[in-house]
Amino acid sequence: MAIADLDRRQALLYLASIGGIAAAGGASSLLAGTAPETPAPPPKSTLARLPWPYKALDPDAVGNRAYQDYSKAHCMYGTFEAIVGSVAEKLGAPYTDFPFEMFIYGAGGVYGWGTLCGCLNGCAAAIQVLSANPEPLVDELYRWYQTAALPDFDPKGMKFKSVHSVAGSPLCHPSIAKWCEASGKKAYSPERKDRCGVITASVARKCAMLLNDQAAGKFAPVNGVDARTKGCMGCHEKGGPLENMRSKQACAPCHSDETLAMKGHAKIKL
Amino acid sequence: MAIADLDRRQALLYLASIGGIAAAGGASSLLAGTAPETPAPPPKSTLARLPWPYKALDPDAVGNRAYQDYSKAHCMYGTFEAIVGSVAEKLGAPYTDFPFEMFIYGAGGVYGWGTLCGCLNGCAAAIQVLSANPEPLVDELYRWYQTAALPDFDPKGMKFKSVHSVAGSPLCHPSIAKWCEASGKKAYSPERKDRCGVITASVARKCAMLLNDQAAGKFAPVNGVDARTKGCMGCHEKGGPLENMRSKQACAPCHSDETLAMKGHAKIKL
Repeated sequence: MAIADLDRRQALLYLASIGGIAAAGGASSLLAGTAPETPAPPPKSTLARLPWPYKALDPDAVGNRAYQDYSKAHCMYGTFEAIVGSVAEKLGAPYTDFPFEMFIYGAGGVYGWGTLCGCLNGCAAAIQVLSANPEPLVDELYRWYQTAALPDFDPKGMKFKSVHSVAGSPLCHPSIAKWCEASGKKAYSPERKDRCGVITASVARKCAMLLNDQAAGKFAPVNGVDARTKGCMGCHEKGGPLENMRSKQACAPCHSDETLAMKGHAKIKL
Repeated sequence: MAIADLDRRQALLYLASIGGIAAAGGASSLLAGTAPETPAPPPKSTLARLPWPYKALDPDAVGNRAYQDYSKAHCMYGTFEAIVGSVAEKLGAPYTDFPFEMFIYGAGGVYGWGTLCGCLNGCAAAIQVLSANPEPLVDELYRWYQTAALPDFDPKGMKFKSVHSVAGSPLCHPSIAKWCEASGKKAYSPERKDRCGVITASVARKCAMLLNDQAAGKFAPVNGVDARTKGCMGCHEKGGPLENMRSKQACAPCHSDETLAMKGHAKIKL
């Protein structure tokens, strides 16, 4: 065996001993002691392999962590870090090196744009990282969010008594508007800020429950499509005679019977 | 110097020579030759430090790459990978190990929900990873998207002649509905699928231009808030007498003068 191979073996054994090699496959092939004629491609970090191995989570602990995370970097970071960070801690490096803080961008429906609720954006990202079958979990979580009176969980350290409201939508803008209406508080008040922290806790907790259920083979969706939305979809969604839009959102909150009638829309068949 | 220290030095020099050490700080302290009494915490991967060092990009190349990426994993992955993947390739490991494929979740406004356009979700994530001052770039990109006739770029390999439309919104659902109206094509047609690939190219290209401008110190926003939206915000946004919602989206496309009048809303002061 040549000196070069000894060096390589020493290097790899040493790095393996201090946990510095993420790609065991690459290490073992080099340790076999023969230098391949064509260099193998560099081993990919396990970060690049999805889904990560899932470890069942304590939903209440996830909720409490999400509430704390919200105060650090808002709603999207809050749900994503509470769920994926909790799994990453159980797995160790390289999972703990994920740049979690990148998800600060989802705050207020992306830097205050009021589009997708950051809690739901973070959860969809988390589900994608942790589930081999993400879509049913996203669908269930989003349908629950748009129809449930939330928040449904009181995280440790919350500052105000919760006022419950139904968003009617997965979007930040109507979610906050509905809460302002229910609470009588302003959109930039301390109460609203804390409410979004508590919603972050509530949504992360629900997401952890869904991930746990799927991992245990007992996930069963309970939130279906409402009759009015089904009626709209019959014409406008895939396979309908018009097929002129795409959406899984409930239609009525934005397209009420009144506004449709004003535009000369025929009565929707339910 | 003890044998153990020689082994350590050889190991680290070897790994450094093949590019296997991400944490130069950890390597250099070990190479100093003295074993600390208390082990240092494991070095954080540079992935966890944001923003990544930015390298100016060729916007047309980013657009072409985004179009190809769209065919692999849809719109959010398309813009994010084309931008951040292009920078990652210039930086090498560990940046190339980022789990890019996680962003498949944003397709069709998150698994077909029609919320935030996946191109814009991916770009906001990319801007967060690459910019030290993300918000002005997100605002400019989103305002451009909701008012411009898009697509404004023809990527290599596109399958159909572009039909231009104005989304009026950063959301997927109205963006596709407006395009279906303009083109007369269906929402699940091959033409619509290709249109979203071309939009992915167009948005990624614009985002690269904005990142380049900011990195060169010459970024200047040109897309302002329209007068109608300013009129709404005067009452409903931060500091207004109602302050009962949060949004930067244009108001009129969802809240038309007609629907407001129907609800007894007074005429908006412009």
